Amino acid sequence: TFTNHVTQRVLNVDTMNPNVKRIEYAVRGPVVQRAVQIEKELKEGVKKSFTEVIKANIGDAHAMGQKPITFFRQVIALCVYPDLLEDKFPEDAKNRARRILQACGGGSLGAYSASSGIEVIRQDVAKYIEKRDSGIPSNPDDIYLSTGASDAIVTMLKLLTAGEGKTRTGVMIPIPQYPLYSAALAELAAVQISYYLDEDKCWSLDVGELRRAVKAAREHCNPRALCIINPGNPTGQVQNRQCIEDVIRFAAEEHLFLMADEVYQDNVYMEGCQFHSFKKVLFEMGPEYSSVVELASFHSTSKCYMGECGFRGGYMEVINMDPEVKLHLTKLVSVRLCPSIPGQALLDLVVNPPQPDEPSYATFIKERTANLHILSEKAKMTEQVLNTVPGIHCNPVQGAMYTFPRLTLPEKAINAAKEQEQAPDMFYCMKLLEEMGICLVPGSGFGQRDGTYHFRMTILPATEKLKIVLEKIREFHKRFTEEFS
Amino acid sequence: TFTNHVTQRVLNVDTMNPNVKRIEYAVRGPVVQRAVQIEKELKEGVKKSFTEVIKANIGDAHAMGQKPITFFRQVIALCVYPDLLEDKFPEDAKNRARRILQACGGGSLGAYSASSGIEVIRQDVAKYIEKRDSGIPSNPDDIYLSTGASDAIVTMLKLLTAGEGKTRTGVMIPIPQYPLYSAALAELAAVQISYYLDEDKCWSLDVGELRRAVKAAREHCNPRALCIINPGNPTGQVQNRQCIEDVIRFAAEEHLFLMADEVYQDNVYMEGCQFHSFKKVLFEMGPEYSSVVELASFHSTSKCYMGECGFRGGYMEVINMDPEVKLHLTKLVSVRLCPSIPGQALLDLVVNPPQPDEPSYATFIKERTANLHILSEKAKMTEQVLNTVPGIHCNPVQGAMYTFPRLTLPEKAINAAKEQEQAPDMFYCMKLLEEMGICLVPGSGFGQRDGTYHFRMTILPATEKLKIVLEKIREFHKRFTEEFS
Repeated sequence: TFTNHVTQRVLNVDTMNPNVKRIEYAVRGPVVQRAVQIEKELKEGVKKSFTEVIKANIGDAHAMGQKPITFFRQVIALCVYPDLLEDKFPEDAKNRARRILQACGGGSLGAYSASSGIEVIRQDVAKYIEKRDSGIPSNPDDIYLSTGASDAIVTMLKLLTAGEGKTRTGVMIPIPQYPLYSAALAELAAVQISYYLDEDKCWSLDVGELRRAVKAAREHCNPRALCIINPGNPTGQVQNRQCIEDVIRFAAEEHLFLMADEVYQDNVYMEGCQFHSFKKVLFEMGPEYSSVVELASFHSTSKCYMGECGFRGGYMEVINMDPEVKLHLTKLVSVRLCPSIPGQALLDLVVNPPQPDEPSYATFIKERTANLHILSEKAKMTEQVLNTVPGIHCNPVQGAMYTFPRLTLPEKAINAAKEQEQAPDMFYCMKLLEEMGICLVPGSGFGQRDGTYHFRMTILPATEKLKIVLEKIREFHKRFTEEFS
Repeated sequence: TFTNHVTQRVLNVDTMNPNVKRIEYAVRGPVVQRAVQIEKELKEGVKKSFTEVIKANIGDAHAMGQKPITFFRQVIALCVYPDLLEDKFPEDAKNRARRILQACGGGSLGAYSASSGIEVIRQDVAKYIEKRDSGIPSNPDDIYLSTGASDAIVTMLKLLTAGEGKTRTGVMIPIPQYPLYSAALAELAAVQISYYLDEDKCWSLDVGELRRAVKAAREHCNPRALCIINPGNPTGQVQNRQCIEDVIRFAAEEHLFLMADEVYQDNVYMEGCQFHSFKKVLFEMGPEYSSVVELASFHSTSKCYMGECGFRGGYMEVINMDPEVKLHLTKLVSVRLCPSIPGQALLDLVVNPPQPDEPSYATFIKERTANLHILSEKAKMTEQVLNTVPGIHCNPVQGAMYTFPRLTLPEKAINAAKEQEQAPDMFYCMKLLEEMGICLVPGSGFGQRDGTYHFRMTILPATEKLKIVLEKIREFHKRFTEEFS
């Protein structure tokens, strides 16, 4: 081919990293980009049948009006500007701030920390895990603080990726999945091994399906890791203890490294459901498993009752990791120096919140309870309203922050979408956005069984707004079905 | 080979990502790890000939006692805990905080931003660049906020990496270099093309050497990018305008993407030296170059007069980037959601500091000037004292935060190091640490001409402490030379 150095760029779509080209990330994909455009049009005075775009595409609680936890913000403000320690703040907030600052280089949030995070905070994380897991020990040396959970998940996938062709690392991920996983695997050129959650059984995980998937994958790659998202994103299910045991047994049998994405561990709404950490279940299964199965579990400041996404705080705990690999992991995270110190400080407050004998306790509990209660109400309301719409089937939102309902779409709509070279649920979500100003993410962005269609919607809009969203979806779905019948 | 699933881990040094294994990162390497151990030993009461370890291994100003800029911290505290807007704070700090909060989702630092950063802040960055570059226009759509500069540098290298074997992307980096570059290239399995800075000419960059390096590299890879660090890390030189023009012309001729690491742009100490941005020089060279040469330049909140490393704020500006590649870049950064919002907010203050008519101006200028003045004094003192030591040769510290002096080591010391399978300057730095409690980084971690030996030392310790450091190095070097003579 003719190469003209003057007009052709060094970096163009033909010469760029092909792995990056293959990445897809629907949570901020075309629908969201169009939503941002529409917002600008509205601002410029363009007339629409709605006056604002309601974004239910991303688990961003504060953007949807949830208020920060007062204690958390007080402590961070004190850390940022220690002159405030002379001002009127609760004593426990001041003590917490002093303790964090003492652990910072030069007593400032502006210093780098150790690459795996501030030691005191890693100790607090370990204590938090021990308490959560009924006393099963946690070692601060197994804790790596991170920039949100995403950072740690990508780091683990990076460590695990090796080999070429048939020996290339394969990683099992649920379908539907949170697209960070498929994006990271595409970037690393690792092999994605899809296992399907059972929509008819409330998106539960079936070990038979894991077996099918791993067996098929062994034909063409080297399956080395199994990713679990519990509570589920985008599917909202909460795994029961038995299921987790089965998964751990499966991982041991098939010699797979377990990655447990547990960032929604406080977001369990449904009666009878309970969060069980993989770590706890693993250790309760006895040394036959707990001394062998390799596990990394992930947590974040972005979800649960606090929703502090913007601080990019998180951690992972690694269990049974090879000590030499840990040295390489520490070296790998060193290259990026350290996670944001305000994010680390915020994580410290999440794992070490006010205690019953401290002055901020009552307010803290009130705020936390209220946030979780409202989420729980909205989870129920979402399921109830969507299930009244003919052509929408919605599993209970047992946990997390999303619903992933199935859509029955008329044949004509599916054909119309194909004509526009769009996935049918992308076509649906785009029309919903244009006509109603509701921004959702098409199910195709998360993966789904062929011939089924879904969208992901967060339950985060304020109650009154959520009612409007659900009402508009009902109205739109009826009209859409009629239009294409 | 026999595989025992019960005892052999899924993830071990034989099965882990071989690219990660190859990474080296000396700034937090063995010397620093030993320094941390020694600190623990001192705490536990182990007797040494020193009472504290002085760390001059990393550009971490606050850890070395530099105080944060008051205005910056006031505004961030107001953003973190907006109740403080009712309190006594300067009006300009309050206005700045309100403006930032208004640009945040739900008016909270806890919301995600657009993946390329908050729009208002990207606009402020563009204005800052325009002002810095004497009015040459900057487009907010070319600005991507990042998690420190490291994040953006790795992202650009990732985009540029493609091909296999002889067509694999090669990236030119200076030797000595900041090891982020070699680490990122190792991780991406891109080819490192070393070009040597001229120590005898004050670490200046010679285009003849660039030509030699690229010509040799074309035999075995596809050179596609040229990285420049100016002011230099670890070498402390400041490039003159002529040199930058020559580099740009070379990049145009050789069809290379330019990456300009300009995080030390305010750190210029030497009379007659001045910072010239690559962007400005490129545009002053006229459309023949400015419409063709692809450039990414990087900046950070971590260095200069503020030294806010812990906030992990930064940005890059991309010039002449292919519009389709920009879409892929935006998608790529979306997967990690967004840079830390406190870091973005801090960056906003760096690019939009108090103005002469604002109440915080006087204090701000006083603090900034003092910080830069002290750095300048320390740069001079470091050069002067080290050059009084026979066997140490130190170029002037024209800018940045480091000196990279050359060591004359006795043959016996070199042999002793080889016996321990250590690089001679690693051997030297380890002994210096054990005997004196001074933590530096061996030159071998940055790259150097074969047969030469160096260390990198920051000029950041407080003046009185820096005097001690320099005095101890003098004493140690004398003793070391005698011991091995």
